[in-house]
Amino acid sequence: MNNVDVIVREVGLRDGLQIHATFMPTASKIAWIEAEAAAGVSEIEVTSYVPPKLIPQFVDAEKVTRRALAVPGLTVAALIPNSKGAERGLALGVHKLNFVMSVSKTHNLKNVRREREESVADFRRIVELVRAKPALERPLIVGGLSTALGCSYEGRVPVDDVVKYAVQLAEAGADELVVADTVGYGDPAQVRAVFRAVTAAVGKLPVAAHFHNTRGTGLANVDAALECGVRAFDASLAGLGGCPFAPGATGNIVMDDLCFMLDSMGLTTGVDLEKLLAVREIVRAALPDIEMHGALARAGLPRNYVPASARRAA
Amino acid sequence: MNNVDVIVREVGLRDGLQIHATFMPTASKIAWIEAEAAAGVSEIEVTSYVPPKLIPQFVDAEKVTRRALAVPGLTVAALIPNSKGAERGLALGVHKLNFVMSVSKTHNLKNVRREREESVADFRRIVELVRAKPALERPLIVGGLSTALGCSYEGRVPVDDVVKYAVQLAEAGADELVVADTVGYGDPAQVRAVFRAVTAAVGKLPVAAHFHNTRGTGLANVDAALECGVRAFDASLAGLGGCPFAPGATGNIVMDDLCFMLDSMGLTTGVDLEKLLAVREIVRAALPDIEMHGALARAGLPRNYVPASARRAA
Repeated sequence: MNNVDVIVREVGLRDGLQIHATFMPTASKIAWIEAEAAAGVSEIEVTSYVPPKLIPQFVDAEKVTRRALAVPGLTVAALIPNSKGAERGLALGVHKLNFVMSVSKTHNLKNVRREREESVADFRRIVELVRAKPALERPLIVGGLSTALGCSYEGRVPVDDVVKYAVQLAEAGADELVVADTVGYGDPAQVRAVFRAVTAAVGKLPVAAHFHNTRGTGLANVDAALECGVRAFDASLAGLGGCPFAPGATGNIVMDDLCFMLDSMGLTTGVDLEKLLAVREIVRAALPDIEMHGALARAGLPRNYVPASARRAA
Repeated sequence: MNNVDVIVREVGLRDGLQIHATFMPTASKIAWIEAEAAAGVSEIEVTSYVPPKLIPQFVDAEKVTRRALAVPGLTVAALIPNSKGAERGLALGVHKLNFVMSVSKTHNLKNVRREREESVADFRRIVELVRAKPALERPLIVGGLSTALGCSYEGRVPVDDVVKYAVQLAEAGADELVVADTVGYGDPAQVRAVFRAVTAAVGKLPVAAHFHNTRGTGLANVDAALECGVRAFDASLAGLGGCPFAPGATGNIVMDDLCFMLDSMGLTTGVDLEKLLAVREIVRAALPDIEMHGALARAGLPRNYVPASARRAA
């Protein structure tokens, strides 16, 4: 899937489900993964290696991972909060370990119960764990920076802090960084400021974006990040998820709308929009009470719409 | 209100209500106008001078216009489909006549039942009508170009066609142009292509943008238009409205979310966000069955949020 302009990554199975009280049956999770991969999504964050005691939704993390690894061509990622999570991922042979820490001190303390410096030290230990593996068995290690565009405890987050921890994770050995607007505070001007500063500081290391649409700015932020050279975006089918700090708020940017916007702009993603929209039915059937978003799903494709790949071929 | 960076214009009373079957009581329309003006919105398209037989929602156009004209400092605009509408507006002393034609041939035939050349000729007659008035009594004449980013009958619309009719309306005497994505087909790349071409062609004539959020790209398109120098945007409180060609589709970009994004970006609009959000209750009370949108209304302002004007003053 390297012959696409922009990589879209599904995170709904992790970010979308983690605050949903109802357990999604394992078979439905697997059906979702398989159908979305068949629609052309090449990378999926399939679960989180947190203790199931903390988030029962992920009690089936091992089974979901194993089944996802059987999907041909799919890059299987999973969230890891610490080195224990990394060990679980390494044992399974997952392709990508998505480590996460918060740029804001308070959010990091609340979310992973440690200081940011301790998180960076955790990340170094995880890199060591991975490097102890034979080269061909090593997963990619992703350094995720949460609350990089604002914090629900502290408000605005200084760009210098984002750059500081981006550089520390890069120097520690990250294969990729993800800059995340965890609580949906970002606007396009902030996005330009943060992503320009981070990409300038970390050289050629790939920097991906993870936006939430909490205040409606999600796709505008995507456009701004594209201008900064970002070519990989996290999103959640039907915009699943929400914000534990804002009841009723919307969640991740909507995968279906993201793919439409990129494709309409002439940027190929490898995703078949009609097939992607059809995957929503799997979620709807499994979780009838979950709130689903998406403008494309309501309005349909524009008349005579020609996908970017076909326009390019013409 | 010239000391703001971006002018936001409410069009919900026209574009939002025109396809809503239930009549909004005149008193509620006036309450909406007064409250939104008090929140800092400086320009409102208050009604449409179409025959009430065609759209009964606008049977109170004269009364609404007169009451809006009594609001201190408010620029009162109204849509006019033809010279008959212009005569009604001139008789009332409205500040702005928003003429509209479609860039796509089929949409213009369906919407105003004439060829595009006839619409341009109508516009010339309207300019003559206005210029026959004493200078101090003349309203501004706005040339609106619908379906400039796509047509629900024809699909993609050539940029050259948008430029052609933009130039014709400019040469005919428009004081301002509005480029409209009537059916919500636009993406940021298209927006840049269209607005750069139009602004290059019409020199210093102000060019405003009118976007719909039908496929989720509304605020991304705003950001792209800002980059092209656009400094006036139409929007609808709570994203009222829809698309007669896409049942269930969302309508205009959400005024509340637009104002938040602009303000967060450091661009002043003169609008008090909390006061603006409170205006939604007037609409809710008057039209309990209308579908209201808006991410900011659900999520609330970011923690410790400081408005752009206060950040600048600090």
